[in-house]
Amino acid sequence: MKRISCIAVLVLICSFSQSNVYGQDGQPDSLRLYSDVAKNIIETALSEGQAYDMLVELARDIGPRLSGSTEAAAAVEWGRQTMLDYDLDNVHLQEIMVPRWVRGPVEQAEVINSPTVGTKSLAVCALGGSVGTSELGVVGQVIEVKNFEEVKALGPKAKGKLIFYNRPMGPRRVNTFAAYGGAVNQRSRGAIEAAKVGAVAALVRSMTTRLDRVPHTGAMHYAKNVAKIPAAAISTVDANFLSDLLKRDESVRVRLRLSCQTLPDVPSANVIGEITGSELPEEIIVLGGHLDSWDKGHGAHDDGAGCVQSIEALRLIKSLGLQPKRSIRAVLFMNEENGQRGGKAYAQYADQNGSKHIAAIESDRGGFTPRGFTVKAENESFANIERLAHLFDPMAASRIIRGYGGVDIDPLNKRFGIPVLGLLVDSHRYFDYHHSANDTIDKVNERELELGAAAIAIMAYVLAMEGV
Amino acid sequence: MKRISCIAVLVLICSFSQSNVYGQDGQPDSLRLYSDVAKNIIETALSEGQAYDMLVELARDIGPRLSGSTEAAAAVEWGRQTMLDYDLDNVHLQEIMVPRWVRGPVEQAEVINSPTVGTKSLAVCALGGSVGTSELGVVGQVIEVKNFEEVKALGPKAKGKLIFYNRPMGPRRVNTFAAYGGAVNQRSRGAIEAAKVGAVAALVRSMTTRLDRVPHTGAMHYAKNVAKIPAAAISTVDANFLSDLLKRDESVRVRLRLSCQTLPDVPSANVIGEITGSELPEEIIVLGGHLDSWDKGHGAHDDGAGCVQSIEALRLIKSLGLQPKRSIRAVLFMNEENGQRGGKAYAQYADQNGSKHIAAIESDRGGFTPRGFTVKAENESFANIERLAHLFDPMAASRIIRGYGGVDIDPLNKRFGIPVLGLLVDSHRYFDYHHSANDTIDKVNERELELGAAAIAIMAYVLAMEGV
Repeated sequence: MKRISCIAVLVLICSFSQSNVYGQDGQPDSLRLYSDVAKNIIETALSEGQAYDMLVELARDIGPRLSGSTEAAAAVEWGRQTMLDYDLDNVHLQEIMVPRWVRGPVEQAEVINSPTVGTKSLAVCALGGSVGTSELGVVGQVIEVKNFEEVKALGPKAKGKLIFYNRPMGPRRVNTFAAYGGAVNQRSRGAIEAAKVGAVAALVRSMTTRLDRVPHTGAMHYAKNVAKIPAAAISTVDANFLSDLLKRDESVRVRLRLSCQTLPDVPSANVIGEITGSELPEEIIVLGGHLDSWDKGHGAHDDGAGCVQSIEALRLIKSLGLQPKRSIRAVLFMNEENGQRGGKAYAQYADQNGSKHIAAIESDRGGFTPRGFTVKAENESFANIERLAHLFDPMAASRIIRGYGGVDIDPLNKRFGIPVLGLLVDSHRYFDYHHSANDTIDKVNERELELGAAAIAIMAYVLAMEGV
Repeated sequence: MKRISCIAVLVLICSFSQSNVYGQDGQPDSLRLYSDVAKNIIETALSEGQAYDMLVELARDIGPRLSGSTEAAAAVEWGRQTMLDYDLDNVHLQEIMVPRWVRGPVEQAEVINSPTVGTKSLAVCALGGSVGTSELGVVGQVIEVKNFEEVKALGPKAKGKLIFYNRPMGPRRVNTFAAYGGAVNQRSRGAIEAAKVGAVAALVRSMTTRLDRVPHTGAMHYAKNVAKIPAAAISTVDANFLSDLLKRDESVRVRLRLSCQTLPDVPSANVIGEITGSELPEEIIVLGGHLDSWDKGHGAHDDGAGCVQSIEALRLIKSLGLQPKRSIRAVLFMNEENGQRGGKAYAQYADQNGSKHIAAIESDRGGFTPRGFTVKAENESFANIERLAHLFDPMAASRIIRGYGGVDIDPLNKRFGIPVLGLLVDSHRYFDYHHSANDTIDKVNERELELGAAAIAIMAYVLAMEGV
């Protein structure tokens, strides 16, 4: 902490005596008083929180909101209106252009003319950004691989084939995000590597730790000077089926039909609102989630949760009469899933009007029980943030560890070198739902969601009082 | 730890050098080696665990298994056979007599002849142990109360009335078990206190933090020389409805019909199996859950989870080739829900054949993400157990705090003074399901359940090696 100040907490704690700088427990009074504030925020969030009610509106009533869609536009207006309803300051939109990819009605894959199973449908969905196929689809023999080295080794044998990426998320990892990180290059770059050796399509095992029949979409990319081939996710149950079939019959052929396409960019916006700081209004702590979602489920955990928690954190601070010295700003970022245009544009905009961002917090790991924060920061800032861990003890969320902040706020770290924090949550269920039809409001526990908002509110408030 | 021994872990870690008692990181080698064992148990549980598959059999296929029911008998046989299939030692039953309460087909409540709503059905279910009503039911005016003081204050006004207990579980508590503890006396003793002032029935707000239309059952009691009046749980949505109605119309009358009854005791059993210790087989660490469940859901979280985790912990230890010095015994206790006969009988039986129990661990808080252990123990034992916290760091479950062990193992603590430990888990969702039709297998996340088994296996194994 650069400075220790008790002014705002004095408003709260009437019995505070300035002559008694250290309490009986030897803890500096400011931190002890923040403990009272933290406890108050937690209890208020659990008993009167409104994050869940907001999420019902955003995820259930508006539904999926892929960048450029009608629903994404409705979500922007919902965010703006909700911030106005809660009487936030300086509510406005930052307009940006976003990509517009549409799935279309057709996504089918089937094993054809197999001697063992005949013709059999596979549960697939187009990966976001994929080109479509002709109406007849692409047909080819399937080659199963586990990684890009195996693809390269195929050489000319891959020509005209469908490359089937089937490396599972590592089941031995406690942290499912680490397991995701170890598998997701198949989805993001699989089509590129397959096209380089002449393949006509890529099928990618869904990124989930579960065995189910639900395909999980997500972003894929193309590269300059490499053919754009269609790419689809296949459910884990169907991936296992296909793999077993290939063990019996190497000549298995699959037909893939996709009607997806990329349309011209369209206008959209980040949604911004804040509590203006009482003493240093130009210094800003950003709280954020992303407003867009994939089109399969309702984007409840990914990332309706982060959006409503960001707004709710401000609402909690206001409703308790807390007056942060620095400004705390909620940003609902657009287009995290397939372009990150919102996050990148916000970093360009962040130092306008003499603003100085000092930290940012993102919630984009689902609305599960908070466990702490991952922090990307220089050593001194990290140490300052780590000192606050005890404030989260009452909710058993005091793990402050080094790690990633978030996709939307990382550009702020890159541009200004400021600390970026990611809300750390219990991660076991996230990839059951992620990017799939399973990501719906009924998968969100109200208490877990509200506690996450409380964790963000506490961190934001103390950083706004103390700096970092 | 009374003694530090590396013999068994030597079997595992072939490269171990006894001359090198302290490793490069300055940690005693035994604890460092246990860290490797713990990591191995965690990774094996996540990738090859069988707790979830067992729970499908117990909770989904057998289903609800209230003491004395056909399903409870099937669960006993399932437990015995499963332990035999996993080649556990000394698999046997401890026969006990259990109460036999049956719900019967009728449980209805309705507001009758209200000027505002007419006749309206309320979602209720009999509390476990309640007497039934006549076929016509009991009818009376409803008086809402929040606590026993209010009941006592009613005095003669309560005569012939239905007492409606409507104190919610405290929403401000982070720990839902604490909130439950603050409300559950309404369920367990509500009928007694209501009968003392002449009431004819008790209606109790369901013990859940959610608002839904599902009533949650649970045990209730009668007292000597106090009339036995029927008692039912009412869903939280209906409790709020009834409370609102009473604000408009104090004369609201409700009819309650219950067909439940208590039959004579029937024989049942605890199911026991173990890994016999290699050096001190007579010293025993007990792992347990309870095999019986309420009859509304499938007893998946309460407490199929604890049963399958207890068996799975032994299976993990065996499958990794670990050879504990002391015996580790799984006990599937019968009749936790409405009598605790299994736990009490086991404590009576525990020192037979020269056995000496040294610790017990129970899992009865649902199959959620493990966070650590609550420990009821003398200071020295607590300190020894607390020293093991770091072993649970890889699964972020290193909270070793003072607290309750469990209903079934508490008699072991009372009789022998031994430490009893309860698996501490993330508690936010538990009371969404507890004792209700919601407690089904689909509410259990496989990874969370398996990790709980891993936590128990690690704690049991190290206690079996080191004593406590």
